Amino acid sequence: MKISARNFLEGTIKEVHKGATTAHVEIEIKGGIVTASITNESVDELGLAKGKKAHAIIKSSDVMVAVE
Amino acid sequence: MKISARNFLEGTIKEVHKGATTAHVEIEIKGGIVTASITNESVDELGLAKGKKAHAIIKSSDVMVAVE
Amino acid sequence: MKISARNFLEGTIKEVHKGATTAHVEIEIKGGIVTASITNESVDELGLAKGKKAHAIIKSSDVMVAVE
Amino acid sequence: MKISARNFLEGTIKEVHKGATTAHVEIEIKGGIVTASITNESVDELGLAKGKKAHAIIKSSDVMVAVE
Amino acid sequence: MKISARNFLEGTIKEVHKGATTAHVEIEIKGGIVTASITNESVDELGLAKGKKAHAIIKSSDVMVAVE
Amino acid sequence: MKISARNFLEGTIKEVHKGATTAHVEIEIKGGIVTASITNESVDELGLAKGKKAHAIIKSSDVMVAVE
Repeated sequence: MKISARNFLEGTIKEVHKGATTAHVEIEIKGGIVTASITNESVDELGLAKGKKAHAIIKSSDVMVAVE
Repeated sequence: MKISARNFLEGTIKEVHKGATTAHVEIEIKGGIVTASITNESVDELGLAKGKKAHAIIKSSDVMVAVE
Repeated sequence: MKISARNFLEGTIKEVHKGATTAHVEIEIKGGIVTASITNESVDELGLAKGKKAHAIIKSSDVMVAVE
Repeated sequence: MKISARNFLEGTIKEVHKGATTAHVEIEIKGGIVTASITNESVDELGLAKGKKAHAIIKSSDVMVAVE
Repeated sequence: MKISARNFLEGTIKEVHKGATTAHVEIEIKGGIVTASITNESVDELGLAKGKKAHAIIKSSDVMVAVE
Repeated sequence: MKISARNFLEGTIKEVHKGATTAHVEIEIKGGIVTASITNESVDELGLAKGKKAHAIIKSSDVMVAVE
């Protein structure tokens, strides 16, 4: 499957923290840590767990730019 | 200013492509290229140009996770 | 690739309208038309054109609910 | 009220799952199931419950396109 | 129509700037100016023009918080 | 830090409601109340609490327009 989102950041899952409905998944990429907020169902269906290879995927319209 | 977005990816602007209202800004971070889609006005006000230090900022609720 | 987004709507591309940087892609699904706003680069890389099979993918945190 | 979001998918609520602050609402539309992640307060104020007619509303900038 | 988005900011349209596919709409609310980036089609269908009463609508998952 | 998001709404925090992973933060601005849905970690790191000065920050691509 190819998807229109422009940002694919390769990494390894560092931590998964499940809440009541929403989970926070920390992915360690080269540049640091990326945190995703996704549904608990997706965590289960994708088998997300510490040490698993994963990509952080982000649509370009959701990326902001900041400068000092 | 401290902001609630969880993802700050440090990099350098590689390219700025302005359209009629929307600009694409490519930021080279350690892990690869992040593309942001922002307004032309923000490009001008932040003085975004090739070679400038910049951060890509992403809210965690906008990050998806993918696995093979 | 499996992705954490919860919404996969199967359909056929009805129309692609490219602007200066942003394209509108209309996908005909069973329930009607879904319009996506994506980058021109993604239109080209995915070879999006009228008649092509495609899925509309939406993160659940981007879906609102409305009632009369 | 008319709203600028381009995507209105008509359906019937199949399930509402409330967490501590965030609820998942599944809406059965013609093409399948759409899952929305909204606040518990909105579930209560809109009286969302199984069997109720509802629309899934999505801004076009939040829709991605995928192809095989 | 009642919608699950939590943020309704009442105002008057100050300016509409249409690009090739994407328009920027400035809405003057009590607290200042809110800028929306929407499709040109929505500008036409909603008849958006300077001086018209309008609401800025924002899902709570799209709002960030910043402090000094 | 200057950020590309176009919308900065100045206000005071009225209420913080933490869930299992996601918190709702109500900010009183001149025009009314803006609700943000952010991570519990951000609430703690930014020290968000009732009475604190804060800005609601919103990317223009996340703002919709509605008319009667």
